[in-house]
Amino acid sequence: MEKPATTQVPIHELIARRWSPVAFAADRPVTREQITALLEAARWAPSCYGDQPWRYLVWNRHVDASAWQRAFMCLAEGNQAWVRNAPVLLLAAASSRFTHNGKENRWGRYDTGAASENLCLQATAMGLQAHQMGGFDERAVRGAFSIPEDCECMAMIAVGHPADASVVEGELAQRQLAPRARASLSERFFDGEWGNGWQ
Amino acid sequence: MEKPATTQVPIHELIARRWSPVAFAADRPVTREQITALLEAARWAPSCYGDQPWRYLVWNRHVDASAWQRAFMCLAEGNQAWVRNAPVLLLAAASSRFTHNGKENRWGRYDTGAASENLCLQATAMGLQAHQMGGFDERAVRGAFSIPEDCECMAMIAVGHPADASVVEGELAQRQLAPRARASLSERFFDGEWGNGWQ
Repeated sequence: MEKPATTQVPIHELIARRWSPVAFAADRPVTREQITALLEAARWAPSCYGDQPWRYLVWNRHVDASAWQRAFMCLAEGNQAWVRNAPVLLLAAASSRFTHNGKENRWGRYDTGAASENLCLQATAMGLQAHQMGGFDERAVRGAFSIPEDCECMAMIAVGHPADASVVEGELAQRQLAPRARASLSERFFDGEWGNGWQ
Repeated sequence: MEKPATTQVPIHELIARRWSPVAFAADRPVTREQITALLEAARWAPSCYGDQPWRYLVWNRHVDASAWQRAFMCLAEGNQAWVRNAPVLLLAAASSRFTHNGKENRWGRYDTGAASENLCLQATAMGLQAHQMGGFDERAVRGAFSIPEDCECMAMIAVGHPADASVVEGELAQRQLAPRARASLSERFFDGEWGNGWQ
């Protein structure tokens, strides 16, 4: 299902086509090579001082169902309702300290967000889909997988093949079918002075 | 100048080709339509609860040289040495509070990083180049442009057309020509358990 972004001027189709579906094909695995491509895309994101503060943890249900299940149990119930069909889960974590000097890295989250966007775009490029979630129990995932204290768990990401909206029900099916929406350019983007909306 | 990422498996060429050059063509303006495309790409990034916590401020030297100059003066000296040739500067700021309820948004920086990555990829797609910087005086830019207290200034971004390495000198020319480098996949990406490097 395609829901290309509506824009004033054309943008690259890869950026326009990426979105966050909830309908995943339960029976179609993601290959190891495809996962490697997702990680390579994240790896080549830019970062402050080239620190690469991102850390990713990958769970593949078709390789280790029990680890995938432990990760799945950390998700909010509302997310579990659709993530149950996704063959791959990832955790995106952000180091809060620079590797080279141990000092606070205030770009840890920012750079990790960039890496995750690359990962999601790469999924789109391969005919897969990636959906990031903030709805998970950070303390639970931290405990279950011994995440170091200086890494913040920012997102869990479901990856898999697209499916028809009929694989989900009720409110989820509505989400799958609803148009995508964004605030207008002028509400978030300013021309020369703060608040002077871009037209 | 092209420096495609070296990867174990192929990734989308747009992601592979994006990098952070320091050689900009001083005499080639960026059109308003091109800037709109950059902002549209950022606008369609994903965000937690769809909050769209990013804010961007745009300065175009060919439209308002004095505002561009005020922004330029907030940059670290090392960045001024090459940004002087870039026709467009942007500030990427992250709201630290959700719009819908005013509570802390711990994904403000993360989502803004994703939006900026879209912006940089869109620049690459149009034959432009975008280079993000953490090296600027946050207090200065906050004061000069009345950035609200609940927005964090995360990056300034130089945008323009590519130029030959000869437009910069010394250490900058070396940076322009040096190969790109990243930590290996196994150092940042883990398979099932933290520290179990992806192979």
